[in-house]
Amino acid sequence: MRMMHKDAQTILRGAIDANMPEANVRAALKKHKFTEDGDIFVVAIGKAAWTMANAAYCQLGFKITAGIVITPYGYSKGDIPRMEIYEASHPLPDQNSLDATQKVMDMVHKLKARDEVVFLVSGGGSSLFEKPLSPLTLEDLKNVDDQLIKSGADIVEINMIRKRLSQVKAGRFARLCEPAKLFTLILSDVLSDRVDTIASGPEIADESTNFDALNVIKKYDIQISPEVKKCLEIETPKQVDNVEIQIIGSVRLFCESVAKIAESLGYASTIMTTQLSCHARDAGNMLAAIARQIGLDKYSIQRPCALIFGGETVVHVTGSGKGGRNQEIALAAAAGIEGLDGLAIFSIASDGIDGPTDVAGAIVDGMTLARLRDKKIRASKALDNNDSYTALKMVNSLIFTGPTGTNVNDVSVILVG
Amino acid sequence: MRMMHKDAQTILRGAIDANMPEANVRAALKKHKFTEDGDIFVVAIGKAAWTMANAAYCQLGFKITAGIVITPYGYSKGDIPRMEIYEASHPLPDQNSLDATQKVMDMVHKLKARDEVVFLVSGGGSSLFEKPLSPLTLEDLKNVDDQLIKSGADIVEINMIRKRLSQVKAGRFARLCEPAKLFTLILSDVLSDRVDTIASGPEIADESTNFDALNVIKKYDIQISPEVKKCLEIETPKQVDNVEIQIIGSVRLFCESVAKIAESLGYASTIMTTQLSCHARDAGNMLAAIARQIGLDKYSIQRPCALIFGGETVVHVTGSGKGGRNQEIALAAAAGIEGLDGLAIFSIASDGIDGPTDVAGAIVDGMTLARLRDKKIRASKALDNNDSYTALKMVNSLIFTGPTGTNVNDVSVILVG
Repeated sequence: MRMMHKDAQTILRGAIDANMPEANVRAALKKHKFTEDGDIFVVAIGKAAWTMANAAYCQLGFKITAGIVITPYGYSKGDIPRMEIYEASHPLPDQNSLDATQKVMDMVHKLKARDEVVFLVSGGGSSLFEKPLSPLTLEDLKNVDDQLIKSGADIVEINMIRKRLSQVKAGRFARLCEPAKLFTLILSDVLSDRVDTIASGPEIADESTNFDALNVIKKYDIQISPEVKKCLEIETPKQVDNVEIQIIGSVRLFCESVAKIAESLGYASTIMTTQLSCHARDAGNMLAAIARQIGLDKYSIQRPCALIFGGETVVHVTGSGKGGRNQEIALAAAAGIEGLDGLAIFSIASDGIDGPTDVAGAIVDGMTLARLRDKKIRASKALDNNDSYTALKMVNSLIFTGPTGTNVNDVSVILVG
Repeated sequence: MRMMHKDAQTILRGAIDANMPEANVRAALKKHKFTEDGDIFVVAIGKAAWTMANAAYCQLGFKITAGIVITPYGYSKGDIPRMEIYEASHPLPDQNSLDATQKVMDMVHKLKARDEVVFLVSGGGSSLFEKPLSPLTLEDLKNVDDQLIKSGADIVEINMIRKRLSQVKAGRFARLCEPAKLFTLILSDVLSDRVDTIASGPEIADESTNFDALNVIKKYDIQISPEVKKCLEIETPKQVDNVEIQIIGSVRLFCESVAKIAESLGYASTIMTTQLSCHARDAGNMLAAIARQIGLDKYSIQRPCALIFGGETVVHVTGSGKGGRNQEIALAAAAGIEGLDGLAIFSIASDGIDGPTDVAGAIVDGMTLARLRDKKIRASKALDNNDSYTALKMVNSLIFTGPTGTNVNDVSVILVG
């Protein structure tokens, strides 16, 4: 059992290392062929913008002509040569978002064909990189948005409207950069591989039409001003030819890293999903139910194996305890695998911070429940009180990594020897 | 897509057929070698007692010397030759349970070594087959039980006490039949393969000791009378040698039937679990998340395949709609597989009755959500209102089988062509 815990540590540390944005931004830029006589500009938006821009500077140095970083308040870690750094509001845009975005627009609007924009995108970019179409204001955007959310429109429909009212979303930023090229590196925190949803796709051609958009307005009876209507009628780019995209970090790549390392340790590895999104406790319950079946008969998954579940689960906090998504998954799983041998389940947040705690997640096995009972802790009661941290701490099941510097959602793994 | 629906129908109907108690009781009895000159007695307890006893009569006819059937009120379907049929209370025992159980005890207490008792067990047997140790009454049992439930004792601890206070549970019935043999056929409705939990194991040696039992009483500070204490001190059988057990129906066998038929249709089949027990909506969400990953890359499960999840999920009814566990799973899954091709997810109750509806379950695919939208139905809203039946009926996604005559929990299947 100790060996499984050691393997789990090897897997999770290796997978986090393989998904660090610094190294991956540098590697991608090193490989990329820039035009010899062009200027290089950097635009970095999102929660990891500073880290990614700093990595770009470390790799390219003074080959960078100029750069702009827009990151949430408190996320800047100091000056970077050649870069202007702005902080703005997240998850809703504010005037600083608009001002910083205007600076970016000013920087890119007269580029030449030989120039190149290194566009570094991470989660949170949507509110940081925003400039409403003229003459609209943030108030106008908010008004439409509020109505849409209350109307029952789905997220695809809401985004369809949102991004059309912006000067930089839905492929329009790529157009602004023309004739220069965009080399886009994405650190994704969304569960699907739909790059058009990351930061509302400033560099991605829009698939929806103004006809679709006006239909949504009609369908949900959204009240809009003549100005908003006029803006919605402006068509978004249906094709962008100056963009190259690489995903340098995502939950999918994170799961692949886990699979590769687990394979190298001798566990036949399967990525079961990269889009886990149900309640944490139910996910843990189901992981345990799946774990119990492994190796049981000829129709079962055979051991040794690693089953990998990437995603981001949900916790509805009703108790007053301390914990996080991954710790709830682990504790709920512990209850379902009591007594099983040669098996461990661990679940971690890639950023090293699971919920409002100082740990990345937790690891449990067939003995965890008995150990909890010895400490007079009932797993179900701890879960009811959202107190997974306290319970798992008592039995040394917590996983501490410290803040890792990446953020590509969570992964839960069933490891069977 | 139509072919997948046809395959789904083939699979679910074949799997239900393979788990019908009549045929399986008859097949087991046909194969069993009874002592030539002994008497055969039948004891049938549980919700399927009548069906199983009737099958025994159909197979053995007047070779049966006598039999007793104890089934819940309303479950008898008429006379069976040589059998006395009693109805009693479920899920809590009543005086009729005790009277009928006394009849069984009278019937078996003077058997000879060459005699054999065909013991037919199905869900609900625990309350139907009950006789407190003398001088305890049903009131005494209820008093202890209520305290245990409120105390926070877990189900293993509660059962440990419950079965020790009975004259027929925890292996004591097998002792009463000695020196005759018991040939036990079990139709299981519990998710684990622990036969000692089915009807509280009248024919299974008890693993717990009176020391364990008194520890539970102490641990939770249960107030017991001197009579109850005296009864708890009586040891249960630690070994029974006169019992042969066959499981003739269970969710595990049900899943195996699904796997076999799916394999024969060309789907590589994996039983992922036979103990699914989380919330239905979360299970559906997770099934969809798993379905989306199939065939995506080298670490994915490859297509064509069938992933099989047996068990019994939970629905907390908060809305006023109509539906059932399996319909909620299907509807929640539909939302997560929108747009996917060559894939179907179905979920059914083996008894043909999902929740308080007239259908067994439902089948959904990548088009279901769009069809719902065309009918102006929002899946999330229908789920919030526990109204899966109404929603799925509108898009012809319900599966109707009628009452099937078996009851081995539910199965959910991801079928990918």
